Amino acid sequence: MLRGLSMVVPADLLCGIVNVGDDLVMHGLRICPDLDTITYTLAGLDNTETGWGLAGESWRVMEELSALGGESWFSLGDRDLATHLYRTQRLAAGGSLTEITAELLARHGVGLRLLPVTEDSLATVFTTPDGASLRFQEYFVKHHHSIEVSSVSFEGAEAARPGAGVLEAIESADRIVISPSNPMISIAPILAVPGVLEALRSRRDDVVAVSPLIGGKALKGPADRLMGELGHPVSNGGIASLYREFAATLLIDFSDAEDAADVIDHNMDCFVTNTVMDSPERSETLAMAVLSA
Amino acid sequence: MLRGLSMVVPADLLCGIVNVGDDLVMHGLRICPDLDTITYTLAGLDNTETGWGLAGESWRVMEELSALGGESWFSLGDRDLATHLYRTQRLAAGGSLTEITAELLARHGVGLRLLPVTEDSLATVFTTPDGASLRFQEYFVKHHHSIEVSSVSFEGAEAARPGAGVLEAIESADRIVISPSNPMISIAPILAVPGVLEALRSRRDDVVAVSPLIGGKALKGPADRLMGELGHPVSNGGIASLYREFAATLLIDFSDAEDAADVIDHNMDCFVTNTVMDSPERSETLAMAVLSA
Repeated sequence: MLRGLSMVVPADLLCGIVNVGDDLVMHGLRICPDLDTITYTLAGLDNTETGWGLAGESWRVMEELSALGGESWFSLGDRDLATHLYRTQRLAAGGSLTEITAELLARHGVGLRLLPVTEDSLATVFTTPDGASLRFQEYFVKHHHSIEVSSVSFEGAEAARPGAGVLEAIESADRIVISPSNPMISIAPILAVPGVLEALRSRRDDVVAVSPLIGGKALKGPADRLMGELGHPVSNGGIASLYREFAATLLIDFSDAEDAADVIDHNMDCFVTNTVMDSPERSETLAMAVLSA
Repeated sequence: MLRGLSMVVPADLLCGIVNVGDDLVMHGLRICPDLDTITYTLAGLDNTETGWGLAGESWRVMEELSALGGESWFSLGDRDLATHLYRTQRLAAGGSLTEITAELLARHGVGLRLLPVTEDSLATVFTTPDGASLRFQEYFVKHHHSIEVSSVSFEGAEAARPGAGVLEAIESADRIVISPSNPMISIAPILAVPGVLEALRSRRDDVVAVSPLIGGKALKGPADRLMGELGHPVSNGGIASLYREFAATLLIDFSDAEDAADVIDHNMDCFVTNTVMDSPERSETLAMAVLSA
């Protein structure tokens, strides 16, 4: 979504507020999967063949770590590791995650701003029906999000403060876009930081959300499954009921045109367009729709 | 020295007590240069061409870190990094450095024991004449040990406790060998851990030291220079005055035979032999001399 927006909006007018609930410390390294994935993607470094990781990545360190019997279920490529070494060193030297994120973007030649929603500790935690507790990456990577979840919580959220510039960005934006990300674990942890939801509510008329569901399915990841397990209708109406309090408009896909009435019943405007971003051109077209909706 | 000893003594009878004053945390990773260098060397993984690092090493992570503008003066190869990731993760999971060292040795097929002299924080710190304070790797790697030093101290040593098995190894050994390492910064931090010097003193008759000087020069590193800067005679007599209280015997090189009287004047026995270990065979020969001295 941000790549599409960056094709139609000058970089200095664009700002992404990014989830940090997926972050982890592994092998002593601070890893921020969402910030990194977005940075790499905007820099054109994403691996389009695998759909994850960096283009031209190598795996020398992980191969050796695996040979040593170390924890290697969370794959870290050699180039990717450099990002984590950089971030960890800079944090230890007193840099803020916001500053470090800006440094990495600049180093990769990306002009827009990305703001971690908070500098404070915030961890997405899954509870399973048998009471086990899993961190985000255990759920997502170690278990390939294939286990049942009874609840999701955001550890540390209550005490977290919005990161530098986050509330100001929401307050000053001409338009605020909720990306078609997972509402349960990508959007919700952002909303869980005190102050963010309130700021969005006060801008409701200018908030446009893009539904992550098409025909009741997520194109990627477990959004559909998680919504169902956590008791939400797995539909655009379900998305509308989650977003209605802070977003005035929902974009849904052409193939779901019949859901428009349901969305409107939730007191949201509904725009029907092509929401599948399977090429840069379609991302650009969706970005234009989002801005004109 | 340990490699030579391992050629003439069964591995299960050999134990090395290793300095940790050079250790550092960099990019969030716990790095133990002495433990690693010894482990790699005993595993036959040392790079004989460069004289440091691992054979067949690659530098993908450091190249990328350097491109990101990260701190890259302390070179960490990709294979080497796996060791540091492993150690850091295991320490975070509650493992002791002693256990982790044993795991890495086992994984590399090395049979003898290596014991970090302490699990506690111990840092070799250099003070320069203008009052600046440098950590070991800043002095050694960043400045290539080419700046003048007015004093060396071992931060944390007073509160450090001997690592598991260290005192027992000294108490039970048939013979104790002080390797021809740098007396100021490789041997001294081991002696600085309370209890170690006392344990050695009580075994004085069975302690044999190998002089690191030949013709008043160290074959490798700044031992000669540091001894002079810190006010010690840069000679086998100087070595004897440092070691006499806990070692009964000093081995010196053939070419320094005339120093024997000086060593004996320090109340040490002196054995004159070939102390240059420029091949595995010569290491083996020196090991036999050490055992029979």
